[in-house]
Amino acid sequence: MIIVMKPHASKESIDHVIDIVKSNGLEVHLSAGKEVTIIGVVGDKSRLSNRNLELAPEVDKLVPVTESYKLTNLKFHPQPTTVKVGNTQIGPGSLTVMAGPCAIESREQLLLIAREVKKAGATFIRGGAYKPRTSPYSFQGLEEEGLRYMKEAKEETGLSTICEVISAESIEAAVKYIDMIQIGARNMQNFQLLREAGRSGLPVLLKRGLSATIDEWLNAAEYIIAEGNENIVLCERGIRTYETSTRNTLDISAVPVLKSKTHLPVIIDPSHATGVRAYVAPLSKAAVAVGADGLMIEVHNNPACALSDGPQSLTCEQFDALARELAPFAALAGRKFHGQ
Amino acid sequence: MIIVMKPHASKESIDHVIDIVKSNGLEVHLSAGKEVTIIGVVGDKSRLSNRNLELAPEVDKLVPVTESYKLTNLKFHPQPTTVKVGNTQIGPGSLTVMAGPCAIESREQLLLIAREVKKAGATFIRGGAYKPRTSPYSFQGLEEEGLRYMKEAKEETGLSTICEVISAESIEAAVKYIDMIQIGARNMQNFQLLREAGRSGLPVLLKRGLSATIDEWLNAAEYIIAEGNENIVLCERGIRTYETSTRNTLDISAVPVLKSKTHLPVIIDPSHATGVRAYVAPLSKAAVAVGADGLMIEVHNNPACALSDGPQSLTCEQFDALARELAPFAALAGRKFHGQ
Amino acid sequence: MIIVMKPHASKESIDHVIDIVKSNGLEVHLSAGKEVTIIGVVGDKSRLSNRNLELAPEVDKLVPVTESYKLTNLKFHPQPTTVKVGNTQIGPGSLTVMAGPCAIESREQLLLIAREVKKAGATFIRGGAYKPRTSPYSFQGLEEEGLRYMKEAKEETGLSTICEVISAESIEAAVKYIDMIQIGARNMQNFQLLREAGRSGLPVLLKRGLSATIDEWLNAAEYIIAEGNENIVLCERGIRTYETSTRNTLDISAVPVLKSKTHLPVIIDPSHATGVRAYVAPLSKAAVAVGADGLMIEVHNNPACALSDGPQSLTCEQFDALARELAPFAALAGRKFHGQ
Amino acid sequence: MIIVMKPHASKESIDHVIDIVKSNGLEVHLSAGKEVTIIGVVGDKSRLSNRNLELAPEVDKLVPVTESYKLTNLKFHPQPTTVKVGNTQIGPGSLTVMAGPCAIESREQLLLIAREVKKAGATFIRGGAYKPRTSPYSFQGLEEEGLRYMKEAKEETGLSTICEVISAESIEAAVKYIDMIQIGARNMQNFQLLREAGRSGLPVLLKRGLSATIDEWLNAAEYIIAEGNENIVLCERGIRTYETSTRNTLDISAVPVLKSKTHLPVIIDPSHATGVRAYVAPLSKAAVAVGADGLMIEVHNNPACALSDGPQSLTCEQFDALARELAPFAALAGRKFHGQ
Repeated sequence: MIIVMKPHASKESIDHVIDIVKSNGLEVHLSAGKEVTIIGVVGDKSRLSNRNLELAPEVDKLVPVTESYKLTNLKFHPQPTTVKVGNTQIGPGSLTVMAGPCAIESREQLLLIAREVKKAGATFIRGGAYKPRTSPYSFQGLEEEGLRYMKEAKEETGLSTICEVISAESIEAAVKYIDMIQIGARNMQNFQLLREAGRSGLPVLLKRGLSATIDEWLNAAEYIIAEGNENIVLCERGIRTYETSTRNTLDISAVPVLKSKTHLPVIIDPSHATGVRAYVAPLSKAAVAVGADGLMIEVHNNPACALSDGPQSLTCEQFDALARELAPFAALAGRKFHGQ
Repeated sequence: MIIVMKPHASKESIDHVIDIVKSNGLEVHLSAGKEVTIIGVVGDKSRLSNRNLELAPEVDKLVPVTESYKLTNLKFHPQPTTVKVGNTQIGPGSLTVMAGPCAIESREQLLLIAREVKKAGATFIRGGAYKPRTSPYSFQGLEEEGLRYMKEAKEETGLSTICEVISAESIEAAVKYIDMIQIGARNMQNFQLLREAGRSGLPVLLKRGLSATIDEWLNAAEYIIAEGNENIVLCERGIRTYETSTRNTLDISAVPVLKSKTHLPVIIDPSHATGVRAYVAPLSKAAVAVGADGLMIEVHNNPACALSDGPQSLTCEQFDALARELAPFAALAGRKFHGQ
Repeated sequence: MIIVMKPHASKESIDHVIDIVKSNGLEVHLSAGKEVTIIGVVGDKSRLSNRNLELAPEVDKLVPVTESYKLTNLKFHPQPTTVKVGNTQIGPGSLTVMAGPCAIESREQLLLIAREVKKAGATFIRGGAYKPRTSPYSFQGLEEEGLRYMKEAKEETGLSTICEVISAESIEAAVKYIDMIQIGARNMQNFQLLREAGRSGLPVLLKRGLSATIDEWLNAAEYIIAEGNENIVLCERGIRTYETSTRNTLDISAVPVLKSKTHLPVIIDPSHATGVRAYVAPLSKAAVAVGADGLMIEVHNNPACALSDGPQSLTCEQFDALARELAPFAALAGRKFHGQ
Repeated sequence: MIIVMKPHASKESIDHVIDIVKSNGLEVHLSAGKEVTIIGVVGDKSRLSNRNLELAPEVDKLVPVTESYKLTNLKFHPQPTTVKVGNTQIGPGSLTVMAGPCAIESREQLLLIAREVKKAGATFIRGGAYKPRTSPYSFQGLEEEGLRYMKEAKEETGLSTICEVISAESIEAAVKYIDMIQIGARNMQNFQLLREAGRSGLPVLLKRGLSATIDEWLNAAEYIIAEGNENIVLCERGIRTYETSTRNTLDISAVPVLKSKTHLPVIIDPSHATGVRAYVAPLSKAAVAVGADGLMIEVHNNPACALSDGPQSLTCEQFDALARELAPFAALAGRKFHGQ
């Protein structure tokens, strides 16, 4: 950490800051410029966590030098992580495609879609059993019943399964039925839930919060990994901006940024990022080209009647066509894709 | 709801949309312009919730006409609500001031601050027992022990008490010890928690999400009120924008906007909105002038050593001085303030 | 346009609105719902431009149905436009690559870079002669002298030339020396400049404003096209958001959104979008995959000493390597790229 | 400036950076931590402006320590500036109210409004003669004719006059007729215009750009002041955020932030900030309470027929009522207000 003093700060104020730092067992390096004096703090800055140095006299600002996330940080773990889920793996060399309906509506619906996306090349079936909805008057999900259908879909098709969890109870249920759990955007900073996901032992897909910075996102992942669970995949799904022609703004740069900051795999969800079916195919190709490790795509047998997110869902036929288009992009990007 | 067709849409496409609407028991009004045909839907549009009309051929867009929140909507409940908590009330005619430390650190600390803020004119002591922190390596709160100290503070000073809750368990504990619960910004769309807060029977302070629109915020309040709990107070605490000179951007316009959309009281938290102690006093005065029903302010006996949010906390002396400054503004705004 | 009345608006208020509309020579379609009455306005709504109907009693809101941009609108011009510049063309079937330094620093620098980017496959040399800089103490450009070097670069290499203009004088100078002018992000709503660019007769590259919506951007293009100049290319260069790990946030979805709204070509500038050299290559590939008609990339012979934007500039060798990587993506996207 | 090296950077890389700094005539202070080495640069960092140190091997990031704006910086000019315009002054101790129509529509309209706002207590008449409009099909202003009406309004009422300028020509015209010029939000980074405004000799009102940070805004003011013109007033008019219930989001915290960073006066424009008439009065009171030096408010004799911005304009009667309400707030804030 660096402490920047106000211009022409008095020796007394500078000494006061130095005293606080030293009395907490840390060393300082002083750099006295013509106008501004800078105090570098050497050692573990967490020792200063309850000393609010910005309140000391004539302190202008504190500048952090190292990130607050450690276990997810590429600097301390320079090899990319591959996350294993069932027979599949997410990470370098693979293009993982997770597909399925926003909400599980019935056993028949889920099995039908599972068969179709399997045929087209997906390796995961996704589907919501617990639905966080903006309005309390919208469909809220089939809950545990939905998870049982997921298990059945896996048994029939061999696809790996992923569902969103929203509470300790839903994690307990998930452990019994499915392969991977998802923390949704609205819960990215539900720290209680992150810890419980960490302890569940299941691989976790952590979606980016609606307006989370990349640093906050990696700190959220740190909550999971700090519980001993390293099987984390990050999922960019659009951030909130002033632009309204898409539901959110897909931050595609997040992929190369994350590749420079963390060892965890990153996938992209173009369906939630845009909210518009017609934009899913071009953005999926862009995601592969930019270096994402996978895609999460909403697919529905009859989008016009979907109970949730119909307008952004592909039909099974559209998904099949997209998978064919993606295959040569995956090959160019050096990734194995089942659909090939 | 209004359905806007694409320019020169075919009669076939228009009839198709009309058929869907009518087959769901609703009426249409057709408005055929020179280029564009508009179809007004008359009746309860929730009947169309699983018909995704934007996917029908030649539909350009759907335009909602009524809001999705009902019980919190001023249109259907035109009198402002006054929320009663203990011996105090929040709403028209009063300026409620909630003050206290970000985190409860010890029994002594809390009682000391409670006495001081009571003397200065606050009617609520606030303090966090369960702390949602961005990094897992920061102090996470005293939990139930903290709640017991709150109860003690109430018994000694007569102040009403408010604490943030983050899970079903913390709500259960809160019911035993405190007067009002707070849903924090990061949990504004934790719908499970909203429902449980609704069922708790306690008055609820609902903070605005980090990047929530006002409509999403009112829909979140709708989750609570739909459980039969009308004792809801909204708290504006800054939204996320590109500006970094304050931690968040206080959306002060939210106060008059909310006054035109809902009957629920609105308070402002200038401490979290800015993250800087020096800005708390001017923004508190602005909050009173703009018509807020109250303020939530962080006060600490020794901010330089606070375990959380020290840089934005006032000292007890600063809070006392602010209360004196606020009194004439409260009078001008036609609000009773204990500190007067 | 649709006029939505407040719930249970009086007949008098409804009639008052209808009178205003009719007295301006327009027709209405009335749609009286159970709670809300909707008034559709049929005809040219510009006749109501000086009647502020939202101020009429019991009007809730106005909902525009058609866009305010006409000549740039795909609805009224459904074929994609190809813009011809010199011997090259920008639009369907081509991948146009514009490359060069942020600022023209000297004749030697520009000619050296022009030769290198030509060799690698660019068809345009870009370079700033008039530099809009955030601080008045930064390098401001060589002005007309720079334009002369651009002309020389064109004569030697055959590349087309593009420079930013910032005033009527710089447009006058540009007409003498270069092939295409650029309106920068900071001037996207400098309406005076847009009109003058329209009248210049030169093709115009219109960058998206720092926080412009897509609709505002198309309205800005409408200023140019309304002067009779249809040779407009749009350039997405990142928008301002709360995320700080990149200088701006590249809104890659803008490409498919624009393709659904306008007939004008769209290119992407990954250099300004991110401000970081290492992210330029992955985002360039994403841009091609998503369907952009071209790229604008900063290239410098010695980025470590560039007078402007060095950190985001590729070296000539890096650009050459990128061009080789882009070629198969261009082929997959069905676009001809000189570098192939 | 501080240069932060990557963890465990080699001695060679560190020496390379030190060599660059020293060879540019600057000194370094080295602070070697356990993991990270920090290099403090002592001296005038502008000497490094063409050395892009972030590109040197193993450099992690550069951290600026001092601001790039100097003459507008409170650190180097600690007394607040009072700007004199005609017989009035803007700054400490006064509440300046500028009022008038968005666009000057006719001589009669302007004179009528001028008389009314004068009576209510305004000291400035505002009115647009050159209108930057989002769509080219909207009313664009009376230009020089409008400026002449402003002069007439001044002669009759004694009010000071202010108009927006959008080009060198409009500044030339303004010098002949009016007292103060305004640079609008869309031109805040039109650096050519800023320089010309600086050279005009007239006091300048500089509106904040649509999505400008406070630092960019002060750098824009630096362009004006660097031409020797110190008579600058800043005007906060709302920033672009994701919230759509107001046209922009009024960043009221900008007032105390600016007071801590610059000596220039700051006023607030609640009309453009919200776009809604009903919100102007509460926000005006908040602006006075927060410490603004003045207000700019749109007033129209017949908002229902205004050619521009009618929905946000007060009627003359509403403005008069607001002035009466503001007077006691001004008194509380220790500011003289003509309307008292």
